[in-house]
Amino acid sequence: MSLLVVGSIALDTIETPFGRADQVAGGSAVYISAAASYFTAPIRLVGVVGSDFPKSEIEFLESRGIDLDGLQVIEGGKTFHWSGRYHYDLNKRDTLDTQLNVFETFNPVLPDSYRKSRYVVLGNIDPVLQRRVIESLDQKPELVICDTMNFWIERKRNELLKTLKKVDVLIVNDSEARLLVSEPNLVKAAKKIMGLGPRIVIIKKGEHGALLFTTNIVFSAPAFPLEFIYDPTGAGDAFAGGFIGHLARTENLSDDNLRRAVVYGSVLASFCVGKFGIEALKNLSDIEILGRYRDFIELSKFED
Amino acid sequence: MSLLVVGSIALDTIETPFGRADQVAGGSAVYISAAASYFTAPIRLVGVVGSDFPKSEIEFLESRGIDLDGLQVIEGGKTFHWSGRYHYDLNKRDTLDTQLNVFETFNPVLPDSYRKSRYVVLGNIDPVLQRRVIESLDQKPELVICDTMNFWIERKRNELLKTLKKVDVLIVNDSEARLLVSEPNLVKAAKKIMGLGPRIVIIKKGEHGALLFTTNIVFSAPAFPLEFIYDPTGAGDAFAGGFIGHLARTENLSDDNLRRAVVYGSVLASFCVGKFGIEALKNLSDIEILGRYRDFIELSKFED
Repeated sequence: MSLLVVGSIALDTIETPFGRADQVAGGSAVYISAAASYFTAPIRLVGVVGSDFPKSEIEFLESRGIDLDGLQVIEGGKTFHWSGRYHYDLNKRDTLDTQLNVFETFNPVLPDSYRKSRYVVLGNIDPVLQRRVIESLDQKPELVICDTMNFWIERKRNELLKTLKKVDVLIVNDSEARLLVSEPNLVKAAKKIMGLGPRIVIIKKGEHGALLFTTNIVFSAPAFPLEFIYDPTGAGDAFAGGFIGHLARTENLSDDNLRRAVVYGSVLASFCVGKFGIEALKNLSDIEILGRYRDFIELSKFED
Repeated sequence: MSLLVVGSIALDTIETPFGRADQVAGGSAVYISAAASYFTAPIRLVGVVGSDFPKSEIEFLESRGIDLDGLQVIEGGKTFHWSGRYHYDLNKRDTLDTQLNVFETFNPVLPDSYRKSRYVVLGNIDPVLQRRVIESLDQKPELVICDTMNFWIERKRNELLKTLKKVDVLIVNDSEARLLVSEPNLVKAAKKIMGLGPRIVIIKKGEHGALLFTTNIVFSAPAFPLEFIYDPTGAGDAFAGGFIGHLARTENLSDDNLRRAVVYGSVLASFCVGKFGIEALKNLSDIEILGRYRDFIELSKFED
């Protein structure tokens, strides 16, 4: 079922204690659509790059069946650049450089062919632009998923609150959830967020997994206990991609299927962190994905 | 099946953002045996108190069927005292005062009637004393469980390593596991700890649950997402008590039953933090415990 993905597209320079990657493709739209491409089609990407964005990366996205009609290429412009260094404790990172470049004036215009998309993921961008995307659609989608971050919660709070009224699922990490509703307890925070619009809240806890809240259930998914984590960049977006990918594939929004979708999100995130940048999302097989899903069952099962 | 519990017995003064409790019964031996008492009997306690330890708390332990033949009461002595204040973020606490008192010269002597105990929990005390307990037993127990902390890892490392050689299960929190084997990755840390003696390692992650490692499996148990947490004191010991209590009750050390035991540990911990001190462990019912266990199933289940 059709999936629209809007977000940043970047050239990232990433340092971790285990290595370095220079000017590699990244950004929320890339991670989300690459992860989702293992589950569903068509995927329609909206984003902006400069003429420095490598042709090989465009070809990779095309090879994954991702529709790039909504990709704006600004001739002579430079792609959004982020550079960061992770500590030995991979939960901590320093941003070394951010150059917005063509992303600074990004206006997500939907091609006509995108306007009837059934599933929508709004990657972490200005909530004004996120809302503009929702309002550009010809019909109400089955599900609108939104990510955001501290920056928008603090700087564009009112705009974010307006956007959240139009959103079905909010995916945030634990510190963002606490900040958004000024509530340290995650259960209470999730309930308060539901009062802002989203009927489903997913709180990501990095290496500690994720919590899913709906009106009726709370579901706790573990993160996969990996021996080797090379690069946490994009893990949250890979999670969102696996989550929405499974939902779009199955067209089933029951609580039980939302649980499965959270696990598929965790599966994609667990692959993502095993290599640098989007490398691990380039060549997954259905067997690998299903195998890791089964590993998650083994990891968390216990009997009555 | 018989369970021997050795550890500290304290009078704690606890402050959290939600209230305060003065001079209430605490210490690892009290939390562990109270929690385990909901699962198995007899429980044999070894510890030391001064003559200031309230008769009502002794009577509570007796009412739970806990054998106090190994409780040393030092006439004229004062009970070990700990005083701490938790931050609004309950993961952080400051120790305001520690008075070892009669605990400073504690020598865990086993009454003859304790020497054939089948299950043994060594609460967090000097590893020299932990080893002395193991060596005082007449026969090899089914399972020896050991807790420890940063203090012993740093100050009595060699003694701790000697003790670990005689231990089947090590229960530590994540920072202690990392410190013990100088390894930030928890999967690798658990494997390294297994090389020190224990064949089973449990890593507690507080509000993020616990990981169980055996030779064959890794199991991730969630923590219960509670809306109200009043006092985290003793949660780790309540976990250990529920864990060993279930194992002693069922006399089954299979991987599947170890998984269940970890969940029962989490169940008892989730009750423990809901009131101050050991208050919540005073009046649990089987129905409450089973109900919370079922809640854990609902919390973590997902389908193929």
